[in-house]
Amino acid sequence: MTDPVKILGFAGSLRAGSYNRALLRAAQEAAPEGMTIEVFDLLPVPLYNADVEAQGDPEGVAAFKAAIRAADAVLMVTPEYNHGVPGVMKNAVDWASRPPRAAALDRKPVGIIGASPGITGSARGQSQLRQAFEFTNSYCMPQPELLVFRAHEKFDAEGRLTDAPTREFLGRYLAAFGDWAKRFRPAA
Amino acid sequence: MTDPVKILGFAGSLRAGSYNRALLRAAQEAAPEGMTIEVFDLLPVPLYNADVEAQGDPEGVAAFKAAIRAADAVLMVTPEYNHGVPGVMKNAVDWASRPPRAAALDRKPVGIIGASPGITGSARGQSQLRQAFEFTNSYCMPQPELLVFRAHEKFDAEGRLTDAPTREFLGRYLAAFGDWAKRFRPAA
Amino acid sequence: MTDPVKILGFAGSLRAGSYNRALLRAAQEAAPEGMTIEVFDLLPVPLYNADVEAQGDPEGVAAFKAAIRAADAVLMVTPEYNHGVPGVMKNAVDWASRPPRAAALDRKPVGIIGASPGITGSARGQSQLRQAFEFTNSYCMPQPELLVFRAHEKFDAEGRLTDAPTREFLGRYLAAFGDWAKRFRPAA
Amino acid sequence: MTDPVKILGFAGSLRAGSYNRALLRAAQEAAPEGMTIEVFDLLPVPLYNADVEAQGDPEGVAAFKAAIRAADAVLMVTPEYNHGVPGVMKNAVDWASRPPRAAALDRKPVGIIGASPGITGSARGQSQLRQAFEFTNSYCMPQPELLVFRAHEKFDAEGRLTDAPTREFLGRYLAAFGDWAKRFRPAA
Repeated sequence: MTDPVKILGFAGSLRAGSYNRALLRAAQEAAPEGMTIEVFDLLPVPLYNADVEAQGDPEGVAAFKAAIRAADAVLMVTPEYNHGVPGVMKNAVDWASRPPRAAALDRKPVGIIGASPGITGSARGQSQLRQAFEFTNSYCMPQPELLVFRAHEKFDAEGRLTDAPTREFLGRYLAAFGDWAKRFRPAA
Repeated sequence: MTDPVKILGFAGSLRAGSYNRALLRAAQEAAPEGMTIEVFDLLPVPLYNADVEAQGDPEGVAAFKAAIRAADAVLMVTPEYNHGVPGVMKNAVDWASRPPRAAALDRKPVGIIGASPGITGSARGQSQLRQAFEFTNSYCMPQPELLVFRAHEKFDAEGRLTDAPTREFLGRYLAAFGDWAKRFRPAA
Repeated sequence: MTDPVKILGFAGSLRAGSYNRALLRAAQEAAPEGMTIEVFDLLPVPLYNADVEAQGDPEGVAAFKAAIRAADAVLMVTPEYNHGVPGVMKNAVDWASRPPRAAALDRKPVGIIGASPGITGSARGQSQLRQAFEFTNSYCMPQPELLVFRAHEKFDAEGRLTDAPTREFLGRYLAAFGDWAKRFRPAA
Repeated sequence: MTDPVKILGFAGSLRAGSYNRALLRAAQEAAPEGMTIEVFDLLPVPLYNADVEAQGDPEGVAAFKAAIRAADAVLMVTPEYNHGVPGVMKNAVDWASRPPRAAALDRKPVGIIGASPGITGSARGQSQLRQAFEFTNSYCMPQPELLVFRAHEKFDAEGRLTDAPTREFLGRYLAAFGDWAKRFRPAA
């Protein structure tokens, strides 16, 4: 018997009806046996400001860092804005990369997936986001790669992932990500 | 006689003592004859949220877009965080890239400079930021390139750019940027 | 009456049946009135070696640089290999960026398009390639953007671009690129 | 007793006096106990051409792939050309990423270091190169990061790494890289 793999997931869009939030909910439902996915909502994480940080992490930031530290691995679900990572997503990573204590992302397994209405499926957003984890010394899973393109054709009006091939691939992604997370888990 | 070139400048750091804010102030002082540089402070620009946007641009965002539209060109002064563009800076660009009316960045000349305490002088932050302007259809000046590395050695305690070679290069950068901006100005 | 716009085109794949070579041939056929597109085949451009260069440019390289200098603008048609620009394409740019005389790419208008069998249509290959032109001081057209995804569905067995929407978009791309090239042409 | 870690190293410059070749030789000398670094010279690896590949890998390519497969991990030493990965380096990776048999880079630990005469120490070249390993499913070590800037001040005329802090840091880099490589070694 092994402990379940605890994943913390967050989406890089604040819009309630976001495809990326919907994809994260679909991931929660598709999580395989032995994996839990908790969702953190980025709304309470403010814009990074070192002067504010010097007074102590704002409540939302402290909760965000604590949630990352408590997880075995982090799953980021990112749109692509203007050929790159959304400011909302990068801002969350910028906070998480900071002290106090060991930076929350140090040696943390990371997975990146994403959705967009266009044809590239957030590819360039994912590429820019990955570059951050070189610096934070996180362990970003290289493959498989999940790019949900033409997202408006894959979700229904209630934000449920109805596209069967995407659901199936998401399941395989999560299984691989669970293995990746376990690989870096400290020996008991 | 030609009209002066109006530049709008903003820095991708909210910290009051930021090297990048200091570099922008130095640019204001170093602006050549026939160029004005107005500074926009990003503090009132909130995190991008399409649900908020659907109710109308927040006041800070409306002012930001209006300031960009009123300028001949935009000068962005960016740190590098986690090998990439700071969330604060990308978030501002994400807002500016949106309707209503013609997106503020469309066909706008753009210059990017930056400073960092490390040796790369914000190079990777600048590279990621540039990619946004492919999408927004802005005209990003390719050269010269201004990377202020080891910024702590180049500014004094009051945030004045005291390094003579950097001051001199900044002057040359701004002269080239003025020519770049004029090249795209509509004929009278 | 104005002189026709002379474009030099080259593809970043050496394979005879390459979709990107086929896309470049389609561009030649679709060139609007007042534009000519000459194709340069990269086969005679060897791997960059500064020791070889020090003895004088190899024949293929000298011809390549001369062809770029003689053109008003350069059209690059690039695949995506391993999430980035193909070595073949970047190698050609590496040679072209070098002296003697003014580097061939300095102040040269550049357009980038590409095709791939996958869904991203060479997006990440194009993004990496664009970064080179910051350094070479070339003028890279930001929009429109032409990503030919699922290329195997868009060309016939003889390599003819048979997909009507892509043909139509290619025509609009070239019209915009002609305007972009003329914008930077020295006054007569 | 454990088997020594076998590293295959190659440099992305063909110039005999290259700083990156010199850095790779310095790495050979600095290899810690329990690590061997074999150098592969990229000169016999031609430009990638799928038509040639269809006839069977050229001799240099076959030797290159075999050397990668025989190694526990790969160390790439890359210059930065035109704000990106040199064509020579990317071309080698493009070949190595191809079948037949399991692609040589699949699940292979990878380290990237580099040198440049400028101030950024190959940072942007390293960033572009890293993106390839997402696709090839290689395990790229995130930290530490070794950027040898102002390389002409760090090597003597014979190409020996004479800068003591860089030598010391190279030793620490290699120790970390050995641990990284062992982490992914199949259980005996």
